[in-house]
Amino acid sequence: MAPTTEKISPVVALAGGVGGAKFAAGLQATLPPGALTVIVNTGDDFEHWGLTICPDIDTVLYGLAGVNNPQTGWGRAGETWNVLAETERLGGEAWFRLGDKDLALHLLRNNWLKSGATLTEITDRLRRTLDIPSRILPMCNQPVRTLVHTDEGDLPFQDYFVRRRCEPTFHGLTFVGADNAALAPEVAESLQSAAQIIICPSNPYLSVDPILSVPGLGDLVRASAAPVVAVSPIVGGRAVKGPVAKMMREMGHLEHLPLTVVEHYAGLLDGFVIDQQDRADESRFPLPTLTTDTIMTDLPSKRRLAVEVLQFTQSLQNGSCTANAPRHQNGQ
Amino acid sequence: MAPTTEKISPVVALAGGVGGAKFAAGLQATLPPGALTVIVNTGDDFEHWGLTICPDIDTVLYGLAGVNNPQTGWGRAGETWNVLAETERLGGEAWFRLGDKDLALHLLRNNWLKSGATLTEITDRLRRTLDIPSRILPMCNQPVRTLVHTDEGDLPFQDYFVRRRCEPTFHGLTFVGADNAALAPEVAESLQSAAQIIICPSNPYLSVDPILSVPGLGDLVRASAAPVVAVSPIVGGRAVKGPVAKMMREMGHLEHLPLTVVEHYAGLLDGFVIDQQDRADESRFPLPTLTTDTIMTDLPSKRRLAVEVLQFTQSLQNGSCTANAPRHQNGQ
Repeated sequence: MAPTTEKISPVVALAGGVGGAKFAAGLQATLPPGALTVIVNTGDDFEHWGLTICPDIDTVLYGLAGVNNPQTGWGRAGETWNVLAETERLGGEAWFRLGDKDLALHLLRNNWLKSGATLTEITDRLRRTLDIPSRILPMCNQPVRTLVHTDEGDLPFQDYFVRRRCEPTFHGLTFVGADNAALAPEVAESLQSAAQIIICPSNPYLSVDPILSVPGLGDLVRASAAPVVAVSPIVGGRAVKGPVAKMMREMGHLEHLPLTVVEHYAGLLDGFVIDQQDRADESRFPLPTLTTDTIMTDLPSKRRLAVEVLQFTQSLQNGSCTANAPRHQNGQ
Repeated sequence: MAPTTEKISPVVALAGGVGGAKFAAGLQATLPPGALTVIVNTGDDFEHWGLTICPDIDTVLYGLAGVNNPQTGWGRAGETWNVLAETERLGGEAWFRLGDKDLALHLLRNNWLKSGATLTEITDRLRRTLDIPSRILPMCNQPVRTLVHTDEGDLPFQDYFVRRRCEPTFHGLTFVGADNAALAPEVAESLQSAAQIIICPSNPYLSVDPILSVPGLGDLVRASAAPVVAVSPIVGGRAVKGPVAKMMREMGHLEHLPLTVVEHYAGLLDGFVIDQQDRADESRFPLPTLTTDTIMTDLPSKRRLAVEVLQFTQSLQNGSCTANAPRHQNGQ
């Protein structure tokens, strides 16, 4: 008789860029190979030098392959900048920092897209070449482009984020093209079979909302029998990285920012994970909450957080959580 | 009173890749700034990694800017290969050697083409950025693609030239798209105002014929009042570089190859320049011939050859040439 093998419980993570990639790397290091699927934001994608750039997919690819630059959080370790330097010399734009290794991937992807491959197929090809055991799924195959409404007018995401360094005051977002996006079968299947769904510590507005804007995707998360948990991107009232706290303030949320995250995900969550620095807010949460150290500085700290979050989420599934709060407290 | 300035006599050179770029560099070093216009073959252009690559234009740009790799004859001096190495690692094709500096130019051009600029405009922008005093004109703005008919079937030019290293037996060429190409105003104007027209020591079939295939271009060369001279790409019965001698043999021309060049340019030439190693063939030529050392190894030898060819061509204009042969002996 064949030996019995333990069934792998599939975990789905929704992720944006740097924070999402770090937490996903912790999950991957904790779970059995193949158990993790990461659904990645593509609202940040844009056209540059005639190439389609997918910053969040690449940050997740590099992070899960262990070839990322740990200093910057984006791009490749051991990167060189020979093409960028020459492009600048020849009169080209250099505000978006494209390294040589990074560019190799963009060129390949662009060529494969031109040949008719989908972003899902290309991403899967790349993650296999990079020996990544986890599935990485773009949120959809159609272009969705985040447009940022600011006091300086509407800015395409990368103009707001990189060129203008998030300085203009944030008024809101439109995910251009989301109405025409289609739920990819791979995304639907992964959410339907998920045993746990975890929203990574990514920017709720810029990284997670675009994913949820894909028609049908948010409904699958809400309808899932699996527990849904979000990890707060706020630590000590500030963003670990990126403009999320600044954006919240510009929308009038001046304090208790972790609570703002929970309220933003109303109807979606079964549990929430906050940093120990925000412990004072703990009693305000209307749902089961894990309070722990959410700062990830290296692989051991990523793995430790992943283990704690997976155990917490598992406990919600089993109904063994001591916290006394309704599941899907809003909307279900 | 302003000092009188000598009027610059415009010289137009028709050029392919390496041989053309070397001779054009000699002409540029000899002539007053702005006197030289180089009309360049684009039949070798192709799509690679989703980018439009223009090998002959780039070889001329790099050669006239003095940033070319003198060892290989193509590409940049001090080149690096970081993108190519990573592309190969990620599963991409690497048979066409794209260096990092070279790639920077392809990316820029591709982006500018996408923005609606013509190849003529882009080439002019690049030669100004590279401080090149000569005009460099693509033979046309529409895509013309050289298709090589061989005993192994039809091969796109770069497949024949780079991937298959010119090994298949050559049967003939088609310049796909030439029928729909249009004579660019800049090309027409330069040929109409030329005081001398010089066909560089480039492959007559692969480099010069595509230029002459642009509707109306060959007629302007034939109709020009300026003397037209070609420099032989054959030295000592062999090609200085590339497959021209092999192609001639495969078409049944086994000896007197410089004469084969002259016969190929029937109706076009007022004079011909051969290498001293082919002096034995000199008496066979039915038109004024300059016999000299045509090997170009460095800038002084390029300049020396350019001076001799310009003086020879000038002599044909003035009717002072001692050789006794009809002008435009075929067809005019």
